Amino acid sequence: MQFSSSLLENAVNEFAKLPGIGKKTALRLVLHLLKQEPAEVGQFSEVIAKMRAEIKFCQRCHNVADGDICSICANSQRKKELICVVENIRDVIAIESTQQFNGTYHVLGGVISPLDGIGPDQLNIEALIQRVEKEQIEELIFALNPNIQGDTTIYYIQKKLQQSSVRVTTIARGIAFGGELEYADEMTLGRSLQNRLPVERYVK
Amino acid sequence: MQFSSSLLENAVNEFAKLPGIGKKTALRLVLHLLKQEPAEVGQFSEVIAKMRAEIKFCQRCHNVADGDICSICANSQRKKELICVVENIRDVIAIESTQQFNGTYHVLGGVISPLDGIGPDQLNIEALIQRVEKEQIEELIFALNPNIQGDTTIYYIQKKLQQSSVRVTTIARGIAFGGELEYADEMTLGRSLQNRLPVERYVK
Repeated sequence: MQFSSSLLENAVNEFAKLPGIGKKTALRLVLHLLKQEPAEVGQFSEVIAKMRAEIKFCQRCHNVADGDICSICANSQRKKELICVVENIRDVIAIESTQQFNGTYHVLGGVISPLDGIGPDQLNIEALIQRVEKEQIEELIFALNPNIQGDTTIYYIQKKLQQSSVRVTTIARGIAFGGELEYADEMTLGRSLQNRLPVERYVK
Repeated sequence: MQFSSSLLENAVNEFAKLPGIGKKTALRLVLHLLKQEPAEVGQFSEVIAKMRAEIKFCQRCHNVADGDICSICANSQRKKELICVVENIRDVIAIESTQQFNGTYHVLGGVISPLDGIGPDQLNIEALIQRVEKEQIEELIFALNPNIQGDTTIYYIQKKLQQSSVRVTTIARGIAFGGELEYADEMTLGRSLQNRLPVERYVK
């Protein structure tokens, strides 16, 4: 792509560094910004820079936060004795969007994956163990992606907590709402048969 | 979508204002930036703001420029007597990418479209007429999208130039009616420049 302005070219190149944004899309976005008022583009640019420079991670749950403690941990309405363990920030947002969970979180920052060189020490696992020991935690709910890495991580943390009286659960595995039985893999279908629910509980 | 950080939320909202970027894509882009070094994100933000604040439009051809005159008009190798008339900056980039054109451009800033309330006065048409009168222009090549608005614009400008001895041509209809210049492959676009037709033959 040939540009007659290096300012334009630099801006397109910066956008094209983002994941899933090619050169043509980058150009479309930059030309859109070019049509906006300078003040609006200034705000766009400022908000992004400010976000990266000032965002913090909650000292308690490792979620993103504006201060030392995130708004979920700081909320006195949330049950502090209930911790939902997730892989990353995106999972927190997904669960919050269901509006079905009133506890707090613990963001691991990944899952144990020896092939990718990620062991327990690279994750916020030790911090979780300490939270369970020091805070009055009643239940840990694992909400990790249902794959080998997720299961390994659950197994590892559960072993570490054997001495503790905390209740350890995981979100239900089964056929997704709107899913097709015939396309479900054998593992999922088999487990959903084993973990079947009385209809009364399913319906409510 | 529920966020535990207003910094994150603001950044996602800014990205989601861009065309074709929804909330989920915006979140993906912001979380990508969150993983980058602050200096890199600072550069991203700075380049965008600088682009909008400092970019200029060429006083001669109305293309984007870093200074008063764009790099194409300033290039002594380009034939000044040959003007390619295009709708917008994107079309300049598309034609430059073919590497088949060695003249200069004139960016109209749109095409005549009464339904959208765009008449000749909203476009850089008067400036084009003046360029033809004052500069030693030998040929105008119209490279407008092949649709009614484009044809109307060609017809209007040709009428205005009837007294002039300038040769008026249009790129060949290698591009399907209703197509968009920016999505044409370089071969088609390049050939359509080589096979341009006099407007008299094009109109009938």
